[in-house]
Amino acid sequence: MKLFSKKYSGLVFICFSLLVSISSAAESTHPNLVLTNKDVTKMRKAIQEPGRFSRAFESLKQKVDKQLASPMKVPVPKDGGGGYTHEQHKRNYQQMFDAGVIYQLTQDDRYAKNVGEMLLAYAKLYPTLDVHPERKVNSQNPGKLFWQSLNEAVWLVYTIQAYDLVYDALSAEHKTQIETDLLKPVARFLSEGQPSTFNKVHNHGTWATAGVGMAGYVMGEPEWVEKALYDLNKSGKGGFLAQLDNLFSPQGYYNEGPYYQRYALFPFITFAKAIANNEPQRKIFEYRNGIILKAIDTTIQLSYNGLFFPINDAVKSKGIDTIELVHGVTVAYGLTNNPEYLDIADKQQSIILSGDGLKVAAELDANKSKPYQFDSVAFSDGPQGDKGALVIMRSKPEGDQTLLFKPASQGLGHGHFDKLTWQFYDNGNEIVSDYGAARFLNVEAKFGGRYLPENNSYAKQTVAHNTVVVDEKSHFDAKVSKGNQHAPTLNFFNTGSAGSVTQAHIDTAYKDVLLTRTLALVELPRSQRAIGIDLFEVAGDTRHQFDLPLHYHGQLIDTNFKINAFTSNLRALGDDNGYQHLWLKGEGTPKNGLAKVTWLNENGRFYTQTSLVKGQEQFLFTQLGANDPNFNLRNEQGFIRRVTQTQNHRFMSVLEPHGEYNPAKEYTLQATSQLQHMDYEIRDNLLLITLQLAEGNYLIAIHQGPAESAAKQTTFTFKQKDYSLDGRMAVYQMNNKQEY
Amino acid sequence: MKLFSKKYSGLVFICFSLLVSISSAAESTHPNLVLTNKDVTKMRKAIQEPGRFSRAFESLKQKVDKQLASPMKVPVPKDGGGGYTHEQHKRNYQQMFDAGVIYQLTQDDRYAKNVGEMLLAYAKLYPTLDVHPERKVNSQNPGKLFWQSLNEAVWLVYTIQAYDLVYDALSAEHKTQIETDLLKPVARFLSEGQPSTFNKVHNHGTWATAGVGMAGYVMGEPEWVEKALYDLNKSGKGGFLAQLDNLFSPQGYYNEGPYYQRYALFPFITFAKAIANNEPQRKIFEYRNGIILKAIDTTIQLSYNGLFFPINDAVKSKGIDTIELVHGVTVAYGLTNNPEYLDIADKQQSIILSGDGLKVAAELDANKSKPYQFDSVAFSDGPQGDKGALVIMRSKPEGDQTLLFKPASQGLGHGHFDKLTWQFYDNGNEIVSDYGAARFLNVEAKFGGRYLPENNSYAKQTVAHNTVVVDEKSHFDAKVSKGNQHAPTLNFFNTGSAGSVTQAHIDTAYKDVLLTRTLALVELPRSQRAIGIDLFEVAGDTRHQFDLPLHYHGQLIDTNFKINAFTSNLRALGDDNGYQHLWLKGEGTPKNGLAKVTWLNENGRFYTQTSLVKGQEQFLFTQLGANDPNFNLRNEQGFIRRVTQTQNHRFMSVLEPHGEYNPAKEYTLQATSQLQHMDYEIRDNLLLITLQLAEGNYLIAIHQGPAESAAKQTTFTFKQKDYSLDGRMAVYQMNNKQEY
Repeated sequence: MKLFSKKYSGLVFICFSLLVSISSAAESTHPNLVLTNKDVTKMRKAIQEPGRFSRAFESLKQKVDKQLASPMKVPVPKDGGGGYTHEQHKRNYQQMFDAGVIYQLTQDDRYAKNVGEMLLAYAKLYPTLDVHPERKVNSQNPGKLFWQSLNEAVWLVYTIQAYDLVYDALSAEHKTQIETDLLKPVARFLSEGQPSTFNKVHNHGTWATAGVGMAGYVMGEPEWVEKALYDLNKSGKGGFLAQLDNLFSPQGYYNEGPYYQRYALFPFITFAKAIANNEPQRKIFEYRNGIILKAIDTTIQLSYNGLFFPINDAVKSKGIDTIELVHGVTVAYGLTNNPEYLDIADKQQSIILSGDGLKVAAELDANKSKPYQFDSVAFSDGPQGDKGALVIMRSKPEGDQTLLFKPASQGLGHGHFDKLTWQFYDNGNEIVSDYGAARFLNVEAKFGGRYLPENNSYAKQTVAHNTVVVDEKSHFDAKVSKGNQHAPTLNFFNTGSAGSVTQAHIDTAYKDVLLTRTLALVELPRSQRAIGIDLFEVAGDTRHQFDLPLHYHGQLIDTNFKINAFTSNLRALGDDNGYQHLWLKGEGTPKNGLAKVTWLNENGRFYTQTSLVKGQEQFLFTQLGANDPNFNLRNEQGFIRRVTQTQNHRFMSVLEPHGEYNPAKEYTLQATSQLQHMDYEIRDNLLLITLQLAEGNYLIAIHQGPAESAAKQTTFTFKQKDYSLDGRMAVYQMNNKQEY
Repeated sequence: MKLFSKKYSGLVFICFSLLVSISSAAESTHPNLVLTNKDVTKMRKAIQEPGRFSRAFESLKQKVDKQLASPMKVPVPKDGGGGYTHEQHKRNYQQMFDAGVIYQLTQDDRYAKNVGEMLLAYAKLYPTLDVHPERKVNSQNPGKLFWQSLNEAVWLVYTIQAYDLVYDALSAEHKTQIETDLLKPVARFLSEGQPSTFNKVHNHGTWATAGVGMAGYVMGEPEWVEKALYDLNKSGKGGFLAQLDNLFSPQGYYNEGPYYQRYALFPFITFAKAIANNEPQRKIFEYRNGIILKAIDTTIQLSYNGLFFPINDAVKSKGIDTIELVHGVTVAYGLTNNPEYLDIADKQQSIILSGDGLKVAAELDANKSKPYQFDSVAFSDGPQGDKGALVIMRSKPEGDQTLLFKPASQGLGHGHFDKLTWQFYDNGNEIVSDYGAARFLNVEAKFGGRYLPENNSYAKQTVAHNTVVVDEKSHFDAKVSKGNQHAPTLNFFNTGSAGSVTQAHIDTAYKDVLLTRTLALVELPRSQRAIGIDLFEVAGDTRHQFDLPLHYHGQLIDTNFKINAFTSNLRALGDDNGYQHLWLKGEGTPKNGLAKVTWLNENGRFYTQTSLVKGQEQFLFTQLGANDPNFNLRNEQGFIRRVTQTQNHRFMSVLEPHGEYNPAKEYTLQATSQLQHMDYEIRDNLLLITLQLAEGNYLIAIHQGPAESAAKQTTFTFKQKDYSLDGRMAVYQMNNKQEY
């Protein structure tokens, strides 16, 4: 165990004023959390030079200067989330942290003095506080400064860093006061005071352990670090390392999805940096094969055109430029020197004032970035990687088309009942969409800015997604506890020159119904754009109604079958499970053959979903917004393919991007689907799909068998011709008589 | 009269092959329409230098090279607009023109040869043609190559220029053949062959006269030029000059609105350039105080954030980067050397290969542009400027907020029944919106790409706009002929340091009902953003129902009164005049005081419309999309303020942009309206409005009297305090007791 700074600092400095000249602190071990003494020396030089780093410094300094000009406010806690005292205490920890950084860089006592005064104000306030008046009834984790202890832990993560940054400028007396009356009590309150939260393998636990562990480093309490790492009993069942073991899959996927992953990331990288700086021998960044770096990198991969895939509860405008991922990418570059991270840092347009941030800024100034490679990849889910997966398939070479498939596990309370759903992206936009969360973040008039009631009644329900609903009931009966017990199984995923293909199944979303979905993003040799192929097989023990919704972004352009539209009177499609929020705008029953629905996205491209039907599927056209008295929902469009009284059904379809609508330049190209014919057959392990497009005919072969079998070469005969398939999928060009 | 080139060229050159070396053409007077010999000399030099001009040349050359690699297609005319032969003949004239330009710049015979061959192919085809099989029944203006002669005239405008560009490379024999069998017959067909179109003071006439006039210059027919300028009888009642006199207002506003203005502009600037180059003594660009330049400049002014105001039939994505305005701005810069046009040219990202285009490119390369000044201005409508106006009011200094007011005349067949409507723009987006045209340009599945039936049944109707509808009937009973006879009267417009203010009235939109609207965009001294003030006075002889719709872009956030929403069943609001397309989603009757409706635009700002009500106004919340069996309409939102059984009513309201919604950075600022109280009173000529905002109290005084009276200083007493008003409007800050 390394010696703790506190042991020395208390002896070396005898101070009579609030401020001590920094020059006497040459031997100090502060700061030494995310920011170190060594970093600071280099950073002080860098702010003298023009470039990204000094610009970032100037910008933060201006912000802090402005804040320091206003009177300090440390109000008695009163309001819940979003309220005045809540927001003020949030502003305060950010301000203390920022001012501490500026103090280190400028060595201007004004900044340290301000932080010290605010810390003393908190040290006076804190001993007077009981648990927060706005805590939830019977809450296991109330705060004192905030209504819930999660915010209190975040407060500590920032504040302990701020204290570390101005440590050398404070008098011994003030340090004693701050530690005794504020920081130690807060750390104890968040650890011994709330064992269930502190020991919990959950994001709330990460914040608590990060705060308490860093407090241990700064205030010379090595036991706190041990407890932070291994739980209060040092059993290893909880604590930071157990969180690293259990909250991420082996590839670094966080099971609530990217929206919460980027949030969860922050305490991990913060505490890990502090551990690495204080106790390099723990090799924290090598832990579990470098799980922290994998988690950062995965967060980047879980995006399209800069925005995170909006699965589960997700506010849709969140993307790779969020501050948590700026920190993540900065740390990732510091660890790897991989120039692809500079590409993301460049897009983030934000520089962290840290040692790693300085490296990023300097290398960006020197134009060292290389394009970040977005991959086609299946991120396994669950601590052991055996709880399903989240699959991203991207087209080559630009990756314009991207297909997301979600045979992932439930993802706890923020998870949606959307097993085997998919989304399609193209040309920068969402085409086949996911509603995300029903929430207007921090907008008081919208249910206090919290998740809206429609988040439960619609956004989480199965019908809000692009996956099969049986008998108008949601997966797992919309019970989180049930969902958490069962994950889909990823049968296979493969990516190669013909595109990417994947398959998964689940038999626990509904009692006695097996759902199996095969999705492929296929590169057709003579086509510029990849197409999506979807085969959704539903097998029941008895007869049911099966609905397969497709939610799309755009304006309906055409269908090749008659829609009976409800033109003068609309009714909701159903009574419950999300159906009550869908207006039924029209319905049609296409005859045997191809049923086409074409829409135009605002990106100027057309999209046609072509379904292979035999006259048994009804198409229901919907618009969101029924039973929405407060106009909380966005009025999005969709259509539902429905079969009733059916035991087994296969929903087969192709999604095809085509053409261009350019009213500014007054031209429209290929506004109609090019797909003239499609069919498929299943032969043992082989799924054979034939497509006839204007540009030519294709045979697509997909091997659905077990991995060992798919690894071998498969030969087969089709229309009197012999073919051989290496691996999971191949695309064969055929002549017009459908022979190669 | 200048000597015509033809007279000499015929004598000087004796040619035995299709191609003549350009060197022997040193004395040629070709080309001499938009592009001149003198221009070409400079342009040939410029394409050797790096920069915008050579890049534009390379780009066009690549396009032409690609086209020349494909076989030539000059099909027998068969299809109507959008069909194959129609589109092919359109492609052909553009290709001939482009290849002609590349020929002039490269002096590479291949290009001239290609143009010559295509002209000869047309010369063979044209004599065999009768009027087009797809012409409209009883059409006054059928084409031969195209279904309507408008397209034929456009064909001639391009083709005569192409001919001029390759003239010197063609043999005398081929020239004779091309002129005798093609160009002269086309010119005659478009002039003597269709006197009513040629003589018409209308955009169709402009294309015809431009084509025929330029043909006169190239082929030595000075009489054709005279007829093009003064009509077939040289009476001056029709022809190009009469069009310049009558199609634009004195300030250069074209009465169909900007969407058609930018289209109409092209033949004007093309023919004018040809006139100026051939007969500078006509001083065409000085004609009517420089009306052509004014028309170009006005087209730029009629935009917000790069897009044209979508009044009347307008496809909304059209903006200042359309090719017609690229030509316009290029000519405007050539005429004026005003560096503000370079700013627009820079935004257009497109360089014309002409003498003026070279100037623009060179000055842009040299960074000579200055920010273009978008003004607050009332563009008078009608040839004499007395048929109403289109009023643009922009905030200072950035002009983020813009208020458009439309007391303009009907604007012929493409005009909408929207007298005194308004729109509001902010932060780059449309906030209070106009539907524009109901049309998917060139999308075959959407009614052949033509104006949709819903353009008549909804988009043109009064209720589709933000203006008063009496008894659910549209202005002028939706009769164009009636609308064309009556324009509103602009009472006043003024812009100054307090903002801009305007008023107009009309008593002919409805029998016995006078509509008067006062609109102001007001800069409040302590507020960053300008607010919109709206007082709509309706005075009837008897009792009526008055509806004032407001169509907004965004998500409804809140109302300060109860909405009874129709949650499980929707019905159309009415049966006709556009009402049949509106679903009634909810209704409420706010009590006496301020009725607030707040929405959030995708630009991240909140907008609150605050109406002053006395319990007599009903608010009807609507969504577009009823009686729309083909899903042709966008499902936009609005609300209608309604009073029934009323003879006189004043709709008073304020539109207030506020706050910011930033879910990416997780903050929301000022999501609620800051307006706490408002009132107004009318004292003779004075309209006095009081506003109480969080930031302070204001008194706004507007002088509604005649110009002479408003020009004088007005003094008045308000709440025991004396005020004086210079001009139309002033804003006074008041203390909290509402005294200054």
